[in-house]
Amino acid sequence: MNVAEYIIKTLEEFGVNSYFYTPGEYNTKIIDAVDNNPNAALYQCTSEICAGYAADGYARINGFGASITSFNQSDMSIISSVLRANNENIPVAYIVGYPDNSNNKLTDLFLNTFSSITSSAILLNESNIKVELEIVLKTLYRERKPVYIAVPQSITDLEINDKNSNFDWFSDTDNLNNAVNHIIEKINNSKSPVLLCGADIKRYNSEIEYKEFSEKSGIPVININFSINLYDMNLPNYINNSDSDKANNIINNSDCLIIAGDSDATDKYKNKCIIINGTSVLIDDKSYENIKMPELFSSLSKIIEHKEYDINSKFEGYKTVSPEKDILSSEYIYPRLQEYIKDNDIIFIDTISAIQGISGIKLPSSVKVECNYNNNNSGWTTAAAYGAMAAKPGARVIIITSGNEFSNFAFELGYIMSYGFKPIILILNNSELSSEEQNRFNIDFKVQYSKFTRIFDGDIWSIKVINDDDFDKALKVTQIMNKICIIELCTNDKIKPKTSHTEENKPKVPIKSDCSDIAELKAENIENINQKPVIVKDSHISGKVLYETNVHRNITLNDNTVKFDSNNKEENK
Amino acid sequence: MNVAEYIIKTLEEFGVNSYFYTPGEYNTKIIDAVDNNPNAALYQCTSEICAGYAADGYARINGFGASITSFNQSDMSIISSVLRANNENIPVAYIVGYPDNSNNKLTDLFLNTFSSITSSAILLNESNIKVELEIVLKTLYRERKPVYIAVPQSITDLEINDKNSNFDWFSDTDNLNNAVNHIIEKINNSKSPVLLCGADIKRYNSEIEYKEFSEKSGIPVININFSINLYDMNLPNYINNSDSDKANNIINNSDCLIIAGDSDATDKYKNKCIIINGTSVLIDDKSYENIKMPELFSSLSKIIEHKEYDINSKFEGYKTVSPEKDILSSEYIYPRLQEYIKDNDIIFIDTISAIQGISGIKLPSSVKVECNYNNNNSGWTTAAAYGAMAAKPGARVIIITSGNEFSNFAFELGYIMSYGFKPIILILNNSELSSEEQNRFNIDFKVQYSKFTRIFDGDIWSIKVINDDDFDKALKVTQIMNKICIIELCTNDKIKPKTSHTEENKPKVPIKSDCSDIAELKAENIENINQKPVIVKDSHISGKVLYETNVHRNITLNDNTVKFDSNNKEENK
Repeated sequence: MNVAEYIIKTLEEFGVNSYFYTPGEYNTKIIDAVDNNPNAALYQCTSEICAGYAADGYARINGFGASITSFNQSDMSIISSVLRANNENIPVAYIVGYPDNSNNKLTDLFLNTFSSITSSAILLNESNIKVELEIVLKTLYRERKPVYIAVPQSITDLEINDKNSNFDWFSDTDNLNNAVNHIIEKINNSKSPVLLCGADIKRYNSEIEYKEFSEKSGIPVININFSINLYDMNLPNYINNSDSDKANNIINNSDCLIIAGDSDATDKYKNKCIIINGTSVLIDDKSYENIKMPELFSSLSKIIEHKEYDINSKFEGYKTVSPEKDILSSEYIYPRLQEYIKDNDIIFIDTISAIQGISGIKLPSSVKVECNYNNNNSGWTTAAAYGAMAAKPGARVIIITSGNEFSNFAFELGYIMSYGFKPIILILNNSELSSEEQNRFNIDFKVQYSKFTRIFDGDIWSIKVINDDDFDKALKVTQIMNKICIIELCTNDKIKPKTSHTEENKPKVPIKSDCSDIAELKAENIENINQKPVIVKDSHISGKVLYETNVHRNITLNDNTVKFDSNNKEENK
Repeated sequence: MNVAEYIIKTLEEFGVNSYFYTPGEYNTKIIDAVDNNPNAALYQCTSEICAGYAADGYARINGFGASITSFNQSDMSIISSVLRANNENIPVAYIVGYPDNSNNKLTDLFLNTFSSITSSAILLNESNIKVELEIVLKTLYRERKPVYIAVPQSITDLEINDKNSNFDWFSDTDNLNNAVNHIIEKINNSKSPVLLCGADIKRYNSEIEYKEFSEKSGIPVININFSINLYDMNLPNYINNSDSDKANNIINNSDCLIIAGDSDATDKYKNKCIIINGTSVLIDDKSYENIKMPELFSSLSKIIEHKEYDINSKFEGYKTVSPEKDILSSEYIYPRLQEYIKDNDIIFIDTISAIQGISGIKLPSSVKVECNYNNNNSGWTTAAAYGAMAAKPGARVIIITSGNEFSNFAFELGYIMSYGFKPIILILNNSELSSEEQNRFNIDFKVQYSKFTRIFDGDIWSIKVINDDDFDKALKVTQIMNKICIIELCTNDKIKPKTSHTEENKPKVPIKSDCSDIAELKAENIENINQKPVIVKDSHISGKVLYETNVHRNITLNDNTVKFDSNNKEENK
């Protein structure tokens, strides 16, 4: 077994069977090793940063992820992905093919930089292979933080003894028992305990154990920050966070806050509560190390006694709203999405406003939601969702993004399509994505996202909607379209372009909004649609013409058939 | 004068009057300061890395450049741009708005990383403003390397005394005289001196002085690496580098190599020659520091005596080639571009094969050429060319790129269009862009670049060409189209997609090339075109329909008018 095969075999034990790559000068042997492994698949990406984001998205759904890129200046751009994975405990192995004679200033810079933002960054050499690889992969497994593995070309082929590697670990028994007793004591002495549930519960693979403990204890649970539906919204002790006054009230009046798996909240409530991290527990300044999160919750579940707490808050989600014919607003969009989202959907969200909107939905517990945290990684959603598609090829993946974010990695759809994936993409256009202050400097960006489909030669459909009614119909269309669907939502027109140039440099092209005067989807022509997804048999749908001119055509939907009206005003102008 | 105004005023003295920005949380005050300055213009970019590349491209044409971005994880992606600017001596001020309480781990990481790849990276604070800013701006001016200026929000408004700042510098007179005498002595003792001319001659603003010296001396000059036409190809002592055997022969037989402004060649020929850098001279291990390149050449010109060297090589460029009807090949493309390229054009090139092709053209000396050096910065060309457009709004900018490279920052066209710029973009598709080894892992990317225009709502025209004849006609069309023109060149089909997936993950969409069966531009319909650019008056051209369906329409060109045949077979299918 050679070095490349050893890495792939170990990652396979971690559950990784998809690799996101860009072919480059120094990584072909590693790609080859994946290609030769019948259990591993390759997914090409448009750039190194996309490969990094896709591996991140894959890890969020699958547990662990991996990218394979090649050393060069551009490769440094994966740093944005690594920073994020490090902040959010996403265990990704960034495997980078290096040149053989890589003892130069740039190599040092890369390794130093990645060392400080991963749990481990190594450059393999002949003498250290087995030892270093074991250390770096153990760290990946245990800490759930990214690692950076630089593999010089000549190293890839070296033989390695793969015996005696064991990457799993178990809690220190004494520490575990002491922590469990301390936690139970605190809860038993408390009148109003609250569990705050953070995304690291997913990262440390503790969802089942956490749920068991929470249900058994009866303690009220709030999904904080962007963990949205991590704790099942249907359970009686779930408290929704979208009404922040209420949630804050419960938190502030609690005499025992238990924060599990959220480093942000940990900072905020330090020294006031029980903090359960992936590998440690902190109670009243007393720290218990080497504790594995799922083992902790299993142990707690065995001892905890159920109590009834006065919660008085059954969460119902949005009430049904009727669509308006004149406007497209958040008041309709999110209640409508509540109907639309179904079991096992995977949702990736870019914008803060959409995260808030989705947080108010009563989601099935099987739905996975991942967010562009604080909008810190521009365009992350499309690339990361690509990883999720590879992780769960059968699942429906819904991407909610803005035009600006989407445009960063929109071409990734070229590959997404090549692998036969069919995400639903909602592009929120002209909505309040950023502060008023920033909007002053946003100039007109003359792109019509719904027409982006036209450059692709494959299974893709798109539409622009400007009112609730059209949005409703468009969502219905996605249920019978067996292809990538893009819906551009023109929700309002609050961003006023401000030009800020000398006379000479001023844009010569008049700036106008095109949301208000083009109703490309005629609502009156879409009727009686059957909500149940059906296989579309109409031959027009797979025809080439459709992909190119569908946006201009009127669409008639009657039960199970889709027809396109070829008498098109736009084209006859 | 406040801090932001001081920076802008100083950069204005350096010649910077355009800023490339992304609006963010912490940089609005700096953007505001530019906006309030009547001599400075703002150009928005789709991402931080694009802003960095655009500032780089601007600096290549204009001397110095600047970007304004905002601190966050994505911002770290400008690092790819900074690395490149540092390698190639491109003086760009990367101005980054920081939060006020920025004393955290991430800030340290950013500053440490950027410190090691710029000549100076500073975080301004109340006590150091004036001193630090003077140092960093002096370094920018003198070393022609990038600098990183982190400006916390609250610092922006602080008042600063702008007196007594002087950023220019002059050579050490003794060192200058000694170096000049040493160089003249070496040349006078030589029988076969050769001047190797590198791109740093542009970066250190020495083009005029270098040319004067080279012409006066009569010494043969070779433009090395990617400096292409830096030394005027029409001059009798110019030797073309595209015939590398001949150039190498001259270099190897020289008893006095003079390398000016090229760090790569400097490494290669170290200790064998006279090395002239931006701020120093090295001869036979003797180093002369603090010498300003243009002053050196001026001094040399005053003393050097003209000699006639046996050059025996008048460069003629390509011979005219007749277009083929069946194939599109490099044998035609570059001779045809030789006819097409005119005085004052600015050319940005992504791919190695195109750099080689363009190197064989006899270019007017006023043409500026910049290349994606070793293809190290994926997609750089489109973003950097945007900067060049801002630097010289009147010039024709030609971008030569590949589909893969173009797709990285293709949406930048949305802003390029908003500011009224009209580049000519040649996309080389399916050509031999990378090694056979890498191509094994390139899967089908289902994008038709020529249709990319359809998503824009503005002045853009595009076409796909599959034979020499069509390419000839398409270039003629660009001369009368007063808008962005994209020509997708399908030169061959050597890249065979290889799928490398388990059965389950295999692409479900059949893979095919669409180059061979679609001749979207009918050559026979384009006739008698007048080479002289004319203003197009035909109303069809500015109509909306054109932008959306032009690729399908047959185009008839007769002298000064352009007509579009609306009987379109594609649409009637």
